[in-house]
Amino acid sequence: MVQSFPRSEAADSTKVLQKKRAILEAAARVFRREGLHASGMRDIAAESGMHVGNLYYYFHSKQELLAFCQKDSLDGLSEIAIKVEELRVYSDTRLALLIIGHFVLLNETRPGSTAHLEVEAVSEPWLPEIKRLRHKYETVFHRVILGGQKQGVFRQADPETITLAILGALNWSAKWYRPQGKKTAVEIGSEFADYLVGGLLAEGKALTQPDPDEISQVTRLHLVTLPLVEA
Amino acid sequence: MVQSFPRSEAADSTKVLQKKRAILEAAARVFRREGLHASGMRDIAAESGMHVGNLYYYFHSKQELLAFCQKDSLDGLSEIAIKVEELRVYSDTRLALLIIGHFVLLNETRPGSTAHLEVEAVSEPWLPEIKRLRHKYETVFHRVILGGQKQGVFRQADPETITLAILGALNWSAKWYRPQGKKTAVEIGSEFADYLVGGLLAEGKALTQPDPDEISQVTRLHLVTLPLVEA
Repeated sequence: MVQSFPRSEAADSTKVLQKKRAILEAAARVFRREGLHASGMRDIAAESGMHVGNLYYYFHSKQELLAFCQKDSLDGLSEIAIKVEELRVYSDTRLALLIIGHFVLLNETRPGSTAHLEVEAVSEPWLPEIKRLRHKYETVFHRVILGGQKQGVFRQADPETITLAILGALNWSAKWYRPQGKKTAVEIGSEFADYLVGGLLAEGKALTQPDPDEISQVTRLHLVTLPLVEA
Repeated sequence: MVQSFPRSEAADSTKVLQKKRAILEAAARVFRREGLHASGMRDIAAESGMHVGNLYYYFHSKQELLAFCQKDSLDGLSEIAIKVEELRVYSDTRLALLIIGHFVLLNETRPGSTAHLEVEAVSEPWLPEIKRLRHKYETVFHRVILGGQKQGVFRQADPETITLAILGALNWSAKWYRPQGKKTAVEIGSEFADYLVGGLLAEGKALTQPDPDEISQVTRLHLVTLPLVEA
């Protein structure tokens, strides 16, 4: 029952990973409907159309399912961050792409996003790895903000405070975003980017908008790379 | 066991209200340590130094405790909003004060703030009232943003999207703010205000900072009004 990520995750074949994601989608529906607390493995199995014994083959506990969900989101976010840091764009455009990428991943690409918010719900043995990934992801924001401040496109402000504000605005969206709403995830993500980069611009600076190709590279990343996970 | 707010709340004497708040403080410590899901009424009673039977006198269930916590926060936020709308200040200053007031209330004045985030954890019979209060509070932000746009101090942007971003940044702070940290709640709240109002300013506009007396009126509101609850 005690499994660390390297064993339970890295060894997953694409097929198992896809099955786990399908289970997370079902779990996300249950969590939204019943609340995270009230939902049990039995409800998740029912929603997945599986026997509960079969569900336990994929996840040994609700704890493990939650941990997988967070690890899965954080892996996706890290891939976005790597891609964004590779692009030859200005810091303000880079920050905008991080924001759009995060919004789309959390609300469109990856299921189970409500569980992504439950930082406290993750327990040992998964906690250290989740914390490490969260910290690593946050430092990308710090780096991009500091870079923009050095270039003079961003005004002076504490990069840690700004990062926490941005991530809060983004993560909270899992509570209210509805796929059937008036706006797409890319649209709201772009409005968020305008707003959240805007608050950091130095006097007289304007955001250099990411072009559609850059946005597409960041938001379509996981659709493209999923089959490569096994390789 | 089924109690609506008007009965369980409005009728509370100051003494009962203070006892309930003390219990919430204990509950908040348990929630932070164990996670909201894993914590039971028994743990909360132990942390409060009460017999569990005595705890049930104040809260019939964990659900009721969570609902009280959210209602209590939302009542406090509504009072701040009323005070802010009374002040004769510009829309940008008004928005800054709403942000500072929210940050301080959530992280300093009111205990149990983690539970404030658990929107889905509130169930019937409390849900309609909580939803009504949340909606009413959000519309204050819409109104202030629209006001600033009419006055030309704010640029055009969807007030609903901006409000959701602001409230997300603020609410998420309950996950990371630590009372013993380097900065006070007023300091971080003010940095948030600079940043989150800044992203909305029209070209060439600068934030008219709230003065210390205005900040104090908004952040000290509950310390002053608590004894008046009974009156």
